[in-house]
Amino acid sequence: MGQLWDMRPLARKLGAFVALTDDELTVLDGLHKRRRTFVAGRELVHQGQSDRSAYVMISGWACSYKLLPDGQRQIVDFQIPGDFLGLRSILLHMSDHTIEPVTDIEVTEIHVSDLLDAFASAPRLATAVLWAASRDEAMVVEHLVDVGRRDAAQRMAHFLLELGSRLTLAGMGSRDGFACPLTQYLLADALGLSSVHVNRVLRQLREAGMVTFRDGQVTFQDHDRLAEFAEFDPTYLDQVGPLLT
Amino acid sequence: MGQLWDMRPLARKLGAFVALTDDELTVLDGLHKRRRTFVAGRELVHQGQSDRSAYVMISGWACSYKLLPDGQRQIVDFQIPGDFLGLRSILLHMSDHTIEPVTDIEVTEIHVSDLLDAFASAPRLATAVLWAASRDEAMVVEHLVDVGRRDAAQRMAHFLLELGSRLTLAGMGSRDGFACPLTQYLLADALGLSSVHVNRVLRQLREAGMVTFRDGQVTFQDHDRLAEFAEFDPTYLDQVGPLLT
Repeated sequence: MGQLWDMRPLARKLGAFVALTDDELTVLDGLHKRRRTFVAGRELVHQGQSDRSAYVMISGWACSYKLLPDGQRQIVDFQIPGDFLGLRSILLHMSDHTIEPVTDIEVTEIHVSDLLDAFASAPRLATAVLWAASRDEAMVVEHLVDVGRRDAAQRMAHFLLELGSRLTLAGMGSRDGFACPLTQYLLADALGLSSVHVNRVLRQLREAGMVTFRDGQVTFQDHDRLAEFAEFDPTYLDQVGPLLT
Repeated sequence: MGQLWDMRPLARKLGAFVALTDDELTVLDGLHKRRRTFVAGRELVHQGQSDRSAYVMISGWACSYKLLPDGQRQIVDFQIPGDFLGLRSILLHMSDHTIEPVTDIEVTEIHVSDLLDAFASAPRLATAVLWAASRDEAMVVEHLVDVGRRDAAQRMAHFLLELGSRLTLAGMGSRDGFACPLTQYLLADALGLSSVHVNRVLRQLREAGMVTFRDGQVTFQDHDRLAEFAEFDPTYLDQVGPLLT
């Protein structure tokens, strides 16, 4: 993967939905004006903050979460290259969550007015971003089902399979597995479990010969059986081909 | 509220985000071609179904849910007038959830190709729909936090306050309360509680003098205290004024 490819994680993602023309790609490239880096643990977007910029992830991992006044935390999702950070915040005029890098990350900053200008000059980009937002919402729905109705082992299995599918689409994983910087504490806050429980569930899945998470590497020992166990249907993540051609 | 107003629940909603021009309103009205009614309990969109139409609610209440193979159900959200039904499904080419009317409902059917044509001829509509989708996502995030981290009484309180705010924006509620056709079974499946637990929590909130839900009517006895108890911040629902003018 060359530098041009790395520069265009958003084009890669939106291109799955809309077959982008050269003009549209030029408009999209014009958005990538200001590249920034953030170190792990330093917040990009703070809950309650009103901001005018969103970001597109170029490299690294981040997480978005809500902090409750009693100190409890619910992780809503993790972000990987190609994902928007804080798009919902600029549209709603106010951030309803905090975004924090899990690893050091590189992002492109996008000002809301530039984004709206881009939509005006290349309207199909707005449709493509609407698709990307729908996909993000589908993931939050799955996390709601994880926490509300799946047992601990199933929700862990479903979550790792979802991450695997997303990373595969981003060129960072396969059916064999993926490199994963998430700690057991982060998994616990995403899945509504204690970290002790996370540890127990991971051992259970490993001993069942389905998936191993060790030394920053998730290895799908038996992807099909794990998917069956988790009742994982990746339809909401896969894009079979551009809807708009 | 006259008939014209009732015919335009979507224009009312999107108009909160984008100050719609006459041309844009005409395009939007052109989408409302086919009015349909569905009786309570008859599915509009079935999980796993691939469809080419979405709907906009004109009157009544619906709910969207995911059914797990073991028969458990997680209600993702309830829909009220002005809300889209199945928008995510047409964008993702596949429904990841089922939508069912809670009461008899009236909807307008919108074909995906008409929607995309509308975006092409009036690009700001795509931005407005993206805003509406972001607001829907913010609600799902709150439901995730409800189920993952709020205790039973707080999550019930938060949920009723959210419904109250949404209905107020739709002209169907106020700080005093709203008419509510939801059963305790529906509340239970939305909040990840048993219906016995729902009953107990509602009694607790009523005895605390904060909110009463009886005979199809939610009455906020003390809206401010309830909001404080639930740590309810309606920022994600309120639109202070059009972002695009």
